Amino acid sequence: MWQYRAPLRDLRYVIEELLELPAQWAALPAFAELDAATARQVLDEAARFATEVIAPLNASGDLEGCRWHDGAVTTPNGFPAAYRAFVAGGWPALSADPAEGGQGLPQVLDAALYEMLVGANHAWTMYPGLLHGACECLRAHASPALKAAYLDKLVSGEWLSTMCLTEAQAGSDLGLITTRAEPQADGSVRLRGTKIFISGGEHDLSDNIVHLVLARLPDAPAGSKGLTLFLCPKFLPDGARNAVRCDGIEKKMGIKASATCVLGFDGAVAWPVGEANRGLAAMFVMMNSARLHVALQGLGHAHAAHDNALRYAAERVQSRAPVRPEAARGPADPIVAHPAMRMVLLRQRVLVEGARVLTIEAAHRLDLAAHAPESAARAQAEDELSLLTPVLKAFLTGQGFTIANDALQLHGGHGYVHDYGIEQCVRDSRIAMIYEGTNEIQAIDLVLRKLVADGGVRFAALLGTLAAALPAQGRLADEVRTRLAQLRAAAAELVEAAPADAELPYRAADAFLDATGWLLVAHAWARAQALSSQPRHADDPWHAAKRASARHCADHLLPEFDHALARVRAAWQALASIEPNPTP
Amino acid sequence: MWQYRAPLRDLRYVIEELLELPAQWAALPAFAELDAATARQVLDEAARFATEVIAPLNASGDLEGCRWHDGAVTTPNGFPAAYRAFVAGGWPALSADPAEGGQGLPQVLDAALYEMLVGANHAWTMYPGLLHGACECLRAHASPALKAAYLDKLVSGEWLSTMCLTEAQAGSDLGLITTRAEPQADGSVRLRGTKIFISGGEHDLSDNIVHLVLARLPDAPAGSKGLTLFLCPKFLPDGARNAVRCDGIEKKMGIKASATCVLGFDGAVAWPVGEANRGLAAMFVMMNSARLHVALQGLGHAHAAHDNALRYAAERVQSRAPVRPEAARGPADPIVAHPAMRMVLLRQRVLVEGARVLTIEAAHRLDLAAHAPESAARAQAEDELSLLTPVLKAFLTGQGFTIANDALQLHGGHGYVHDYGIEQCVRDSRIAMIYEGTNEIQAIDLVLRKLVADGGVRFAALLGTLAAALPAQGRLADEVRTRLAQLRAAAAELVEAAPADAELPYRAADAFLDATGWLLVAHAWARAQALSSQPRHADDPWHAAKRASARHCADHLLPEFDHALARVRAAWQALASIEPNPTP
Repeated sequence: MWQYRAPLRDLRYVIEELLELPAQWAALPAFAELDAATARQVLDEAARFATEVIAPLNASGDLEGCRWHDGAVTTPNGFPAAYRAFVAGGWPALSADPAEGGQGLPQVLDAALYEMLVGANHAWTMYPGLLHGACECLRAHASPALKAAYLDKLVSGEWLSTMCLTEAQAGSDLGLITTRAEPQADGSVRLRGTKIFISGGEHDLSDNIVHLVLARLPDAPAGSKGLTLFLCPKFLPDGARNAVRCDGIEKKMGIKASATCVLGFDGAVAWPVGEANRGLAAMFVMMNSARLHVALQGLGHAHAAHDNALRYAAERVQSRAPVRPEAARGPADPIVAHPAMRMVLLRQRVLVEGARVLTIEAAHRLDLAAHAPESAARAQAEDELSLLTPVLKAFLTGQGFTIANDALQLHGGHGYVHDYGIEQCVRDSRIAMIYEGTNEIQAIDLVLRKLVADGGVRFAALLGTLAAALPAQGRLADEVRTRLAQLRAAAAELVEAAPADAELPYRAADAFLDATGWLLVAHAWARAQALSSQPRHADDPWHAAKRASARHCADHLLPEFDHALARVRAAWQALASIEPNPTP
Repeated sequence: MWQYRAPLRDLRYVIEELLELPAQWAALPAFAELDAATARQVLDEAARFATEVIAPLNASGDLEGCRWHDGAVTTPNGFPAAYRAFVAGGWPALSADPAEGGQGLPQVLDAALYEMLVGANHAWTMYPGLLHGACECLRAHASPALKAAYLDKLVSGEWLSTMCLTEAQAGSDLGLITTRAEPQADGSVRLRGTKIFISGGEHDLSDNIVHLVLARLPDAPAGSKGLTLFLCPKFLPDGARNAVRCDGIEKKMGIKASATCVLGFDGAVAWPVGEANRGLAAMFVMMNSARLHVALQGLGHAHAAHDNALRYAAERVQSRAPVRPEAARGPADPIVAHPAMRMVLLRQRVLVEGARVLTIEAAHRLDLAAHAPESAARAQAEDELSLLTPVLKAFLTGQGFTIANDALQLHGGHGYVHDYGIEQCVRDSRIAMIYEGTNEIQAIDLVLRKLVADGGVRFAALLGTLAAALPAQGRLADEVRTRLAQLRAAAAELVEAAPADAELPYRAADAFLDATGWLLVAHAWARAQALSSQPRHADDPWHAAKRASARHCADHLLPEFDHALARVRAAWQALASIEPNPTP
C-alpha cells in the first residue's frame, strides 16, 4: 500500500556532499550562522511533519474531497487541524526575514520542505502553496498601510491567500480579463466579476483569506497592459464579510481535497497593490519562486511514485526472471528482477535524483539572487533563474506525471485501483503540467521571451556556466560536453532563423525545452559520477548506486536528449494548418 | 463540452478507398454477397447506436459508478436499457456464423462497430466486450452439451460472460493460480477460490452470467501447465443460484461504470471446457481477437479525444498566433492557429487515422485467417496476426492514452475538470495498457515468443509483405523502405545475440515493439500518400488533408521510429540491478 517516505538521505547528499552548500552559506552574510547540523535538523523535522501529519490524510482526502454548501467549503477530515499544526510549527515562515517574524533560513531548505509536503499530500499543500508568492508580492508592491495590515498574518500563515487571475474566457491569455474595479473616494475599489479555478478560494483552514485579484480600472488600456492588482480580503478589517462569494467548486481529475473555486465579486472592497495598469508586472515578481514550487510538485510526485514502485517491485512476485536472482527458489521472482521493470525503475531513479539536484541548485540561486554580496553574482543568479525556471517547471512536471504513470503501470491491475494509492498520484500530478502557465507556455517563455529576445546571450552564458562546472574527466562529462555544444549550436540557429520564419521558434519550443531538460539532468549526473568515482567512495553502497545511475543516464537517457534535438531540427519544416472535420 | 462523433467518413475511406475491401470480400465465399452499400449501412447504424444510445450515458455513468450491495451490483442509470437495445439490434451477433443465428458479416465491420462503441462509452462496452472471446472459446473447446446449453444465448448476447483468470497473487503470471476444481461423479466440478478484477462479474444487464474460470484439478502439475478451463454460470440450468458470489467491486481510476468484481467461488458447480490441464491453450484461442479489441479501445479513445480537442481548439480563443489567420480580428485567435497546438493536433490526426488503417487491416486478416479459400493465405494471415496483435495492442493503447492526455493538456485548466469530459477519457483509456496482458507482456510476447522463438523467420516475412505493399514512389514510401531494412537488421541482430545474453531481448522488447508500431503507422501513411497524390484527387479537400498528414508523418513521426531504434541499440548495454533504499 502507498506510503510516503521522505528522501532525507538524498537531500543530505545533495546539499552537503554534491553541492557543498553549507560552505556556500558561510559566504553569504544572511546565512553565515547556519551550519549543516541545523539544516539537517530542519529537514528531519520537515520530514516528520510531512510523513506523520499530512501523508496519512492523502488517500482519505482524495476519497472525501471538499464539500460546498451555500458559499462555504468544508475540507476533508483532519485538514484544518493539520494546518493549525503547520502554523504552530512555524513552517510558513521558514525562509522569511527574521524582521518579519521569519526564521531567515535559505530557500534551499524551503524547497526541500515543499518537495516533501507535496510528495506526502499535494492537495493539502495547495492551501499554503501561494503564501510565499503573496508575501513577495506585497513586500514589493503594497502600500505601507496594506503591508501593516496583512503581511505579518500571511508570513506566519495565520491567514491564507489566493491568486485570482483566471476567468472563463481568460486562461493562458490574461489580456482577456474583464473583472472591473470601480474606484472609490477613499482610495479603495469595488470589484465586480467572476473568477474561476481559484485554488483555496474558500475553505475552513484559516480565519481570513486574502485574495490578490487582477482586474481592470475604468478606461484602462485593452489587453494585459490594462490590468491592476488588488488585495481583497474575505473579512474586512472591521470584521464584516466582504462581498466575495464562493459560487461553487470544481469536480476535478485529482487534488480533490483542494477546493478549486468559482469566486463571484459583487462590489467587493479591495485596495490596489502597486501601480495602476501594472498588475501583471506585480504578479510576475513572484513567478520564479512560484514556478519553482510547481517544479517541486513534479519532483515530489516523482519521488513518492518511484519509492512506492520500487518497494512494490521488491515485494511483488510474478514469473521467473530471465536471469534469476542468486537466491531464487520457487516458481517466480520479485518483479524488480525483470529487465523491463528495472529499466523503468532505473530511469525513474535517475530522473528523481537528478531533478533533486536541479531544484536544490535552483533554490540556491534564489538565495544567491537575494543575498549574494556582489551585485554581479546576484545578477548572474537572476539571469540563470530566468532561463532555468520555465525548463524546470515544464520538464519536471512532465516527468513527474510520466514517472507516476510508469509506476502505475508497474503495479499492473493493482495500479488502477484506489487502494494502492498510485492512481491518485497520477491524477494529482497531472495538474502541475497545466497551472502557473501550461508547459507549452513555459516553452514559449524560454524560447521566445528568454532565448530569442536577447539574441541568445543569456542562454549561451548559462551553457558556459554549465560547461565550466563539468568535471574534466569521466564518460558522462565528455558526453555532456559534446551535447552542450550541440545545444548551443541549435540555439544559435534558432535565433538566426527566427526573424525570417515567425513560427519557427514556436514550433521548436517544446522540443527545445525538453532537450535542455534532459541535458540538465545529465549534467547533474556527470557531477555525481565524478564525486562517487573518488577512491574514498569505492566501497560505499550509496555511491555505488549513484555510479550505476550515472551509467544508466549515459546509456539510456542521453538518447532522449538526442531525440529532443532531432525534434528541434524537425521543427524547421513548415507545419500544416488543421481544420476540424465537419464530419470525422 | 465532450461529444462523440463517429468517424464514418474515415471508416468508409479506409474500407472502400484505401484498402478496397469490398473487392476482397467478393473473393471470399463467406462474404461474396456483401457489397459496399450494405457495409455502409451497417456502419451508419452502428454509428447511430454509439452516438445516440450509449454516448449520452458516458459522463453520467462515470459520475454514478456502479453500486454494490450484499452481492448484487447496480449499474448506472440507462445501462440495462441500452444493453437491451444492443441485443435487440442484433449487434452482438454481427460477425457470428448465420448457422448460429449471426449475421455472418466480416470482422472488419465488427472492429469498426467496436471502435465506435468504446469511443462513445468504454465502461458500457466492457459488458459485452468479452462475448466474442467466450463464444470462440466455447466453439473451439466445449462439449456439444455445453455448446447446446450456452452458445446461442451468448452469440445473441441474451446472456453475458466473463473471463475469470486473475487472483490476488496471480496477475501477469497465471501459473500462480490456486483456485481449485473438485471433480464430481457426474463430470462436473465444484470450484473453490477467489478471483479478482473480474469485469462484469456481477451486474443487472442480463438474466444470466457465464463465467469462464481457470482453476486447478487435483494433482495437476504446478504452474501454467496445470490449469483447466471451466464454465460456471451464475444461474444453473435448473434455475438455482450457483455458489458464486460477488464479494465487492473495485474503486478504480476510470471505467467506473464497469463493475470490476471480486468473485468468491464456494463450491460453485462448473463443467470443463476442453482438456484437463490445457486451460491456458483454450483461453489463448481467443487471444488475437481479444487483444485486437483492446487495440481498438486505444483507437476509440484516441479518435474521441482528438475530435473533441480539435473542436475545442477551433472554438477556444486565447492570445494572438505568431502568424494570424487571414480573417483575424480582435485581440486573440483560436488556439488551433497556434503552432504548439497544431503540432499536437496533427500528430494526433496522423496517429488516429493511421491506427484506423492498421486495425481495419488486422480485422481483415482475421477474416482471411477464417475464410480465405487457400490454406496458405489463411496461414499467412495467422502468422502476420500473431506478430501484429501484440504490437497493435500495446502501441495503440499507449498512444490512445497519450493522445487523450495531450487532448487534456490542450484544454488547459478546463481539461482537468470533469465537465469537459476529456479527463474521463484519460482515466478510462488508461486501463487498456494493463489488461489482456500488460503492454510489457505484449512486448515480451512479440520479441521472445514470436521473434526470437522462430529465429526471426515470421517477422522477416512480415517485413517482406510490408515492403511489397509499399508504393514504388513517394517520399514517405522511400523513407519507410529504408527503415524497414533497419528494423530487419535490428531484428536479426537481436536473434543472433540472444543466446549469449539472455536478458538482451527483454531489455530491448519495449523499444522494439515501439519501433515496429511507428513503422506500421508510417507504412499506412505511405500508402495513403500515394492514393491521395493521384491527379484525380488533386482538388479534393479530404485528400489534401490526407496529403498534409502524410507530410507531417514524414517530418515529425519518423523521428519517433529513429528514437525507438536508438533505444533498441541502447538495450545492448547491460542493465544494473536496483535495490530498494532502506532509507530513501
